[in-house]
Amino acid sequence: MTSSNKTVSVLLGAQWGDEGKGKIIDYLIENHKINVTARCQGGNNAGHTVVANGRKYDFHILPSGIISPTCFNVIGNGVVVNLDAFFSELAHNGILEESGWEKRIMISSEAHLVFGVHSQVDGRQEDSLAAKNKIGTTNRGIGPTYSSKCFRNGIRVADLMADFEEFSEKYRRLVEHYKKQFPSIEVNVDEELAKFKQHREKLAELKLVGDTVGFIHEQRNAGKQVLVEGANGALLDIDFGTYPYVTSSNSTVGGACTGIGVPPTAVGNVIGVVKAYQTRVGTGPFPTELFDSDGEKLQTIGKEVGVTTGRKRRCGWIDLFLLRRSAMINGYTAIALTKLDILDTFPTIKVAVGYKLNGQVLSSPPAQANAWGAIEVEYKEFEGWNEPTVGVRKFEDLPEKCRQYVKFIEDFIKVPIVYIGVGAERESLIVRQQ
Amino acid sequence: MTSSNKTVSVLLGAQWGDEGKGKIIDYLIENHKINVTARCQGGNNAGHTVVANGRKYDFHILPSGIISPTCFNVIGNGVVVNLDAFFSELAHNGILEESGWEKRIMISSEAHLVFGVHSQVDGRQEDSLAAKNKIGTTNRGIGPTYSSKCFRNGIRVADLMADFEEFSEKYRRLVEHYKKQFPSIEVNVDEELAKFKQHREKLAELKLVGDTVGFIHEQRNAGKQVLVEGANGALLDIDFGTYPYVTSSNSTVGGACTGIGVPPTAVGNVIGVVKAYQTRVGTGPFPTELFDSDGEKLQTIGKEVGVTTGRKRRCGWIDLFLLRRSAMINGYTAIALTKLDILDTFPTIKVAVGYKLNGQVLSSPPAQANAWGAIEVEYKEFEGWNEPTVGVRKFEDLPEKCRQYVKFIEDFIKVPIVYIGVGAERESLIVRQQ
Ligand SMILES: Nc1nc2c(ncn2[C@@H]2O[C@H](COP(=O)(O)OP(=O)(O)O)[C@@H](O)[C@H]2O)c(=O)[nH]1
Ligand SMILES: Nc1nc2c(ncn2[C@@H]2O[C@H](COP(=O)(O)OP(=O)(O)O)[C@@H](O)[C@H]2O)c(=O)[nH]1
Repeated sequence: MTSSNKTVSVLLGAQWGDEGKGKIIDYLIENHKINVTARCQGGNNAGHTVVANGRKYDFHILPSGIISPTCFNVIGNGVVVNLDAFFSELAHNGILEESGWEKRIMISSEAHLVFGVHSQVDGRQEDSLAAKNKIGTTNRGIGPTYSSKCFRNGIRVADLMADFEEFSEKYRRLVEHYKKQFPSIEVNVDEELAKFKQHREKLAELKLVGDTVGFIHEQRNAGKQVLVEGANGALLDIDFGTYPYVTSSNSTVGGACTGIGVPPTAVGNVIGVVKAYQTRVGTGPFPTELFDSDGEKLQTIGKEVGVTTGRKRRCGWIDLFLLRRSAMINGYTAIALTKLDILDTFPTIKVAVGYKLNGQVLSSPPAQANAWGAIEVEYKEFEGWNEPTVGVRKFEDLPEKCRQYVKFIEDFIKVPIVYIGVGAERESLIVRQQ
Repeated sequence: MTSSNKTVSVLLGAQWGDEGKGKIIDYLIENHKINVTARCQGGNNAGHTVVANGRKYDFHILPSGIISPTCFNVIGNGVVVNLDAFFSELAHNGILEESGWEKRIMISSEAHLVFGVHSQVDGRQEDSLAAKNKIGTTNRGIGPTYSSKCFRNGIRVADLMADFEEFSEKYRRLVEHYKKQFPSIEVNVDEELAKFKQHREKLAELKLVGDTVGFIHEQRNAGKQVLVEGANGALLDIDFGTYPYVTSSNSTVGGACTGIGVPPTAVGNVIGVVKAYQTRVGTGPFPTELFDSDGEKLQTIGKEVGVTTGRKRRCGWIDLFLLRRSAMINGYTAIALTKLDILDTFPTIKVAVGYKLNGQVLSSPPAQANAWGAIEVEYKEFEGWNEPTVGVRKFEDLPEKCRQYVKFIEDFIKVPIVYIGVGAERESLIVRQQ
């Protein structure tokens, strides 16, 4: 999969998340001898679905490699960890019943902890905003946790594992800090501390906490293949996304370096996962959004409902103007185009190829939130192929019009489309020769 | 300097900042046809000194390329921008008197703005901490600005350049937000807004704001050489540093990707700048710190006084245990060893080669702040060379014992030491063949 010492591959959502990353990761683990999967950013706001081993898994904080007995799993320093979610996810995905699972997972001692108070802050802050300014957060406390991290009163996993009195004091100070800002916050400090004490004992007993930076470095030196799984999507990046309607971490490729401590010089493949149309959860700019029957059809056939939130996703045509930007920033070496089968029954399919603002052609997406509302999208129209693609396994066997659609995307963003998803099942994947 | 399409080089401080990065950058600009220099993180808390063109420049927020008439300068999206500091730095370094300077600089419209209120929050928060917990911030509001960014009520340059009413409203909300937490904050809102209105006019008139991501991408495609200047130092990184005694951004190499939007696949050289001994400003762990006459001597001969803060720097022996970690995370392709001449008169020189905690040999630095206090350092001792090196221009002409010292460092971290600084002047530099 990679050459020389560039044994780190990064897989990223190239849009606003929910691109179907789980299935591609699953394929790569199975077919490319991935030894380590690692999460580098985000928290349990993300959500992958993996259909494998005759069951459906949903992961929010766990790396997908947990379902493969030969894969080691790292929760990197850049992740913000909700320990309640971590343990309950292990439980409800049936991982705890597998023997030796604990020897295949390590949480970075440098990762920051998400507390209940962070979720409450999320809610209070969102409530305090006028309707038009609401960010549409998932209320998991992810943003406030990253904010604490930068404020340098964040609390890390290492703090929990060290002196518990000191940890408790830090925690109390954190609660006080936020209570000043949002007096309505209610926290049962003693209960929370008791719970964290339990988490601590479990983490210590199972030896789940460690130096993930050093571990991955050793693995790399031993020639092992590391796959970093991005969460969220490039257009939700705190820097390059549609700020402030973004997630509070770098979901672009740089987040893999900052979030697990691998240098750029170790990164070989960067795989962008792109849905054949566009979706977005919550509020925020979405120029190609559809409010008509096509939009409803995408939502229904595509089963576009959030795994984490249960919210219906907004749907629209694929936005190649934004995808080109996403490719510029991430340097994708390959694209995985997913859910192409969802377009099988559309008589006409559109793709966004340019933006105008006040009659002027734009060379880059607006950096200011309000400008998005006034964007005029330039579309290219394709005739639909009107044929099922779900059984197809070779690119040449796709309908001619379907291949044209794929090739247009490829030419537009100048990155080879190597994987094409044509159904929810593991097998419904076309892999093109490079 | 670089091969193929990897035209981005990153220069980083490998310790706690103040490694003498300015001089190496100056050399690279002069000798490696650098077309673009870019700042990717931090704010005006950093400080480079560049001695060139017969004068001394000190830069905090400006990229060093500003002194070279052929160099374009980018302040990337990852930087937090204090506009007062920006304009006054241009003025007091004499840049405003050069014709056409404004055509050689671009501030990212995606960069976040530092406001007076952020500096006040810095001070209030630091005051609220017990003496032992103080972080030793420079009170420039850098941490709170990054914290606002993650909280998603940060205000970006693009907001300032768009509708001013809307900007004012956002600004007022930000002040209110922080006033709830720190009621003693005093801000003259109208005065601040009037000042920002002026800044806005100046930025617009001089066309200083733009899409730096797209710009750098174009430059790369045209084969231009880009040099990213890290600020602070790797051991101050928000993730990999001695948290919470760190700066609030990624000062390791990943920060170059997240802070200017270049993919890892574009990064060729990563140059780590390492002082021949160790210094640190403010509070925080420093296992090799010296409290004896050797420490004083390093401080005096090394002129170890902060450019930005005027604070005396703490001094000690070089810490190779931490430097190896820094190399692991950043993947340095070359090292610049600076201020070697400062060691010329020491009869004995020590280097840290390992850490023990409670009698146990450590494989990685502690992730928890308190553990640092109990670290036992293992040293290797070198006899000093007791000869001036300041005039030396070839590695072979360095005293034998001095070369041994350099080679030991090189072998320990397994990265070639390509540049060796032996004096403050531009010329006092040894460049070794690779
Ligand atoms: N029809 C169809 N469904 C797919 C395809 N690829 C993935 N899926 C399904 O789409 C959903 C993936 O979305 P989600 O888990 O939200 O995305 P992720 O977070 O990026 O992994 C799951 O239900 C998958 O089984 C595909 O090519 N076609
Ligand atoms: N004696 C000596 N001084 C040097 C050398 N390299 C840089 N300097 C001086 O050290 C200082 C650089 O430190 P500083 O500006 O704080 O570091 P920076 O922020 O990393 O650029 C300046 O005064 C330089 O002139 C060297 O090799 N020897």
